[in-house]
Amino acid sequence: MIDWIAFDADDTLWRNEEYYLQGRDEFFKILAKYDLSPEQISEFDRFEVANIPYFGYGVMSFVLSMIELAIDLTAGSIDPRDIQHIIQLGKRMLTHEVVVFQGVEELLKSLAGDYPLMMITKGDLFHQQRKIEESGLRTYFKALEVVSEKDPSVYAEILRRHQIQPDRFLMIGNSLRSDVLPVLELGGWALHLVDHPTWSHEDDPLAESSQERFLEAEGIPQVYDCLMEAGVLQE
Amino acid sequence: MIDWIAFDADDTLWRNEEYYLQGRDEFFKILAKYDLSPEQISEFDRFEVANIPYFGYGVMSFVLSMIELAIDLTAGSIDPRDIQHIIQLGKRMLTHEVVVFQGVEELLKSLAGDYPLMMITKGDLFHQQRKIEESGLRTYFKALEVVSEKDPSVYAEILRRHQIQPDRFLMIGNSLRSDVLPVLELGGWALHLVDHPTWSHEDDPLAESSQERFLEAEGIPQVYDCLMEAGVLQE
Repeated sequence: MIDWIAFDADDTLWRNEEYYLQGRDEFFKILAKYDLSPEQISEFDRFEVANIPYFGYGVMSFVLSMIELAIDLTAGSIDPRDIQHIIQLGKRMLTHEVVVFQGVEELLKSLAGDYPLMMITKGDLFHQQRKIEESGLRTYFKALEVVSEKDPSVYAEILRRHQIQPDRFLMIGNSLRSDVLPVLELGGWALHLVDHPTWSHEDDPLAESSQERFLEAEGIPQVYDCLMEAGVLQE
Repeated sequence: MIDWIAFDADDTLWRNEEYYLQGRDEFFKILAKYDLSPEQISEFDRFEVANIPYFGYGVMSFVLSMIELAIDLTAGSIDPRDIQHIIQLGKRMLTHEVVVFQGVEELLKSLAGDYPLMMITKGDLFHQQRKIEESGLRTYFKALEVVSEKDPSVYAEILRRHQIQPDRFLMIGNSLRSDVLPVLELGGWALHLVDHPTWSHEDDPLAESSQERFLEAEGIPQVYDCLMEAGVLQE
């Protein structure tokens, strides 16, 4: 029933969101001395999303948004050395160890014999490539696609380029907005990793109607059985 | 003699370096009030190159390097509002109009009938894709490759993926370091656009020995005749 299986990477194959949450925590610690209210600090999400059209997704965008917010909230009175601390925190985020989730390698091994696997990941090209290399997982993937957005047109272009029929394509990921909904919209299969950590911006309520070709698993260790039960994999 | 023709994009198909030069000028104007010496300001190149392993190539990397340098040179005494000005200058650089060089569209039109064309460009994925769309040139290219580095291994991977023999591949670009030398090293053809503006980091002396498969043209309007004279194009 399936010709290709694709995986998201950040928060699907390896830890990611927790580094952003740690980054935010460090950022709020840096700002603590400026006596800001929780309401002011909660502006961060708005700044970050407003900057996507300029900077896209990724750590550099996150860092530039933190700097802008810090200057804005302190009405320009922030100590510039604290801005330097924010940049240093970004550099740590860009070079942290890549921690692959439990069960990922076993799952890829068990699938790669029967299916070509593809990685479709969103964000800074440079950082994503560093993480792919460092993960040690590159060898399992026949195709790598780093994209700047994950919408139906981007998936359609990937499917066209690899000559894949949408209903013979399965995408596995943690984000309803980026990994599941656009693929279902094209008529493909999507498996949602329900218990994986996910940035709030990547949440999106599924349409009310029950969706054909939509699967759910708690996490990576449950994926193989889920696919077998759904009859998606060849016996 | 050739199966594919590839083009660099920044400073080959459209203006780029001049926006960085303008960005530097604006940056130095912002710093003018801090009484820095020309020697101090000339540290910028060093900062920018030292940050490539963290941030890669592109405007966000450039902006973060300016911010770091500004804080460093003023020993933390810079007005944070000037840091905000640096970020705004970066946002203008990320959204400026894309100005295609004279003769590009005619050249692509005259080649695209006989050869599949590829664009191979380095930098921020998000910004590069915006420029590709805005240039109006996308339609001429059969393949687009945005890469984070341009070295022989990256070119080799592209050639492998598209099943191109190196000696049947021609790369056209303004940068000796990125567009010419790695392709010659693989045994491919390379055409250097001698008079196009080029970031100093992208300069690289050619090896002394006369290089086979190395061509030179002043600029885009001279490319077609140069290829014909060299006998690279089929009559």
